[in-house]
Amino acid sequence: MPTLQEMPLEELRHHERELVQKYKALRGRNRNIDMTRGKPSAEQLDLSNDLFTMVSRDSYLGDDDVDYRNYGAQAGTPEAKAFFAEWLGVPAKNIFIGGNSSLQLMYDVLLRAMLFGVPGGDRPWRDIDGVSFICPIPGYDRHFKVCETLGIKMIQVALLDDGPDMDAVEGLVAENPEIKGIWCVPKYSNPSGIVYSPNVINRLAGMTTAAPDFRIIWDNAYAVHNFDGNLAEIDDIHALASRAGHADRPLLFASTSKVTFPGAGIAVVAGSDRNIDDIVRHTTIATIGHDKLNQLRHVRFFGNINGLKQHMAKHGALLRPKFAAVDEAMQKAFSGKDIAQWVAPKGGYFVSVDLLAGCAAETVRLADEAGVKLTPAGSCHPYGKDPHDRTLRLAPTYPTLSEVEQAMEIFCVSAELACTRKLLAQG
Amino acid sequence: MPTLQEMPLEELRHHERELVQKYKALRGRNRNIDMTRGKPSAEQLDLSNDLFTMVSRDSYLGDDDVDYRNYGAQAGTPEAKAFFAEWLGVPAKNIFIGGNSSLQLMYDVLLRAMLFGVPGGDRPWRDIDGVSFICPIPGYDRHFKVCETLGIKMIQVALLDDGPDMDAVEGLVAENPEIKGIWCVPKYSNPSGIVYSPNVINRLAGMTTAAPDFRIIWDNAYAVHNFDGNLAEIDDIHALASRAGHADRPLLFASTSKVTFPGAGIAVVAGSDRNIDDIVRHTTIATIGHDKLNQLRHVRFFGNINGLKQHMAKHGALLRPKFAAVDEAMQKAFSGKDIAQWVAPKGGYFVSVDLLAGCAAETVRLADEAGVKLTPAGSCHPYGKDPHDRTLRLAPTYPTLSEVEQAMEIFCVSAELACTRKLLAQG
Repeated sequence: MPTLQEMPLEELRHHERELVQKYKALRGRNRNIDMTRGKPSAEQLDLSNDLFTMVSRDSYLGDDDVDYRNYGAQAGTPEAKAFFAEWLGVPAKNIFIGGNSSLQLMYDVLLRAMLFGVPGGDRPWRDIDGVSFICPIPGYDRHFKVCETLGIKMIQVALLDDGPDMDAVEGLVAENPEIKGIWCVPKYSNPSGIVYSPNVINRLAGMTTAAPDFRIIWDNAYAVHNFDGNLAEIDDIHALASRAGHADRPLLFASTSKVTFPGAGIAVVAGSDRNIDDIVRHTTIATIGHDKLNQLRHVRFFGNINGLKQHMAKHGALLRPKFAAVDEAMQKAFSGKDIAQWVAPKGGYFVSVDLLAGCAAETVRLADEAGVKLTPAGSCHPYGKDPHDRTLRLAPTYPTLSEVEQAMEIFCVSAELACTRKLLAQG
Repeated sequence: MPTLQEMPLEELRHHERELVQKYKALRGRNRNIDMTRGKPSAEQLDLSNDLFTMVSRDSYLGDDDVDYRNYGAQAGTPEAKAFFAEWLGVPAKNIFIGGNSSLQLMYDVLLRAMLFGVPGGDRPWRDIDGVSFICPIPGYDRHFKVCETLGIKMIQVALLDDGPDMDAVEGLVAENPEIKGIWCVPKYSNPSGIVYSPNVINRLAGMTTAAPDFRIIWDNAYAVHNFDGNLAEIDDIHALASRAGHADRPLLFASTSKVTFPGAGIAVVAGSDRNIDDIVRHTTIATIGHDKLNQLRHVRFFGNINGLKQHMAKHGALLRPKFAAVDEAMQKAFSGKDIAQWVAPKGGYFVSVDLLAGCAAETVRLADEAGVKLTPAGSCHPYGKDPHDRTLRLAPTYPTLSEVEQAMEIFCVSAELACTRKLLAQG
């Protein structure tokens, strides 16, 4: 069978008619499936239900018999810091524990950078003309929204199979002091699922930047979220940057949102002594500390890092068939047609698909009409604008396996129909 | 007996020697009592231990069977909004629920005002020369620290027995567009315990301000915290300001920090539609919502506003004897000597004492040497500087009743000794 591009026009017209038939039949089933966001399923949440009994009226004391019901522990409880220190591979003194959202911690760091500046800089970022961040593409829409809201310009570089295009990154940051940082999701990246290579991480840690106060926002949201094979290991950006003389460069973020309960988890930021001192100094003004009882719940629930890994293996077992279903559906539908490209991820929460240029938004529209909500086209690009209208993000974790299978059937027909029509329109 | 001021010098010297004897005897007992901060005691925290069982693996669903373990409800859950709406006397749509700290909500509102501005203003506050806030004195040190950190100048006005000196406030805000707001703790004020009168609240709501984007930070931290007599009622600033055409002026804050657990409570902000829309618009960028399970715990624990009031009556019963002990100790020690002024509060967490000018810091030093830690002198003033070195804040909630009695004995002797020496030095 020829690829759709190679298909004679008459045959392509016939193919379109067949697809329309299929599409209408699927649409007639009145589905209502949401594949927009990276939400854990109810079954995944059930894995953490023991959290509910981890603290009680008889067990609210922390280390040294401190009453965690009361004020205190502004940067986090000692046991929570110790736990996340092992998770993130940094000393406990380099940990700050926040509320339930690591995005909030990232937003706060950048908001304060705009108003106050950061250690190593000589002024607030807001006072820097054209203050910019590098955004590897495809990326995470919420990262981009933070930049957009704060007035930080976004400079796009390609996210390759082993991380950002480092030749491009190094060239940009060496020349432009107004480039103050880069967004990184180093493991099972959102949305493409790639893992940063040792070489990329080493270059990020050691590169020369014109800005003395350059920051890597190291959003390790999927640090322990493998579902296919062994957990990927990535190099230690904190240690590498310190060794290269850039200890203040990386800020590491993680959370338990997709580990326990997104609505009631724990978020954490790690960094150099200077960075953590700066965070503590600022946040001391705003709060006497975050929810210590919830920190205690989590530490007791996991026990230790091995407990965390065993827990994540259960998540993986629930997620594996869903991601397999996504891959199989696309293999079956797109094979040999040369209209879609993707890499089956081994962890994380998403699958990124590149369709023929000009077909992403139409695919989302068609799928929506047939009862499947997808993340809007453009969401993997700054300002929601994909210049090629090509990249889509699939989020198969929340629906049931059966729903994922139904949704993928609709997605694949929608995508192929959009691509076929695009080719027909191009003659 | 003459007041100390009237005492002949020789007699005063003799009095000092007697006080030194007493002081040394007390110091010799090696006490270690902390009266620095407004922390609930362990017995108070025990009143809320049923919180631990309010949600479980069988009861995590909210209204409409929404799974509160997962993402969502960015501005708060419907039932928590409804509960706080009744508490604060505003419609539920005018409520935003945050994490565990109302101070954090206040800080965030002002931080964003500095960087982005607020509804009704034409620019970020940071771009306004000499941007200022009115600070009624004595006031809350953490409020002042927020201003200091954000670069907001502080203009002091007197806090009288019925609220801020409104003649001074009205004069200032009418003339100066760079004055963007005022801090208010309207009920059982921190630290003096006074309650704002209807007249003061009406004038705050209706006054003409040169700044179109003037904000009242209405920190109703002690809204339900009476321990002596009926709960004080204050007028509805939200309704009054709306009626006067200044709906956006007040931002109301409350929390359960001193109601349930300071380390794991719920904080809330209320305001006009425009203010809440603005808060939602900004916070949407940073978080997908705060801890919904904890919101559910709290709503179930209280049941309704009557449940809250019954709960607070138990707090009151624990606090009453401690505040009575403070008052009795000072009555006994200072009566007729004309060296200390205070008003016994009927709610809240503090007693504010004015000593002879120049005696506050020395009193804190003497008490500290004798084993009683007090809030530093100056903490009720901006920048920690009391120009008269006169005002001290006593925080008797956390120590046991016996400790409060011991601490007050030491405080009273320390204060009288400091005042006596001051009078001797003045000849």
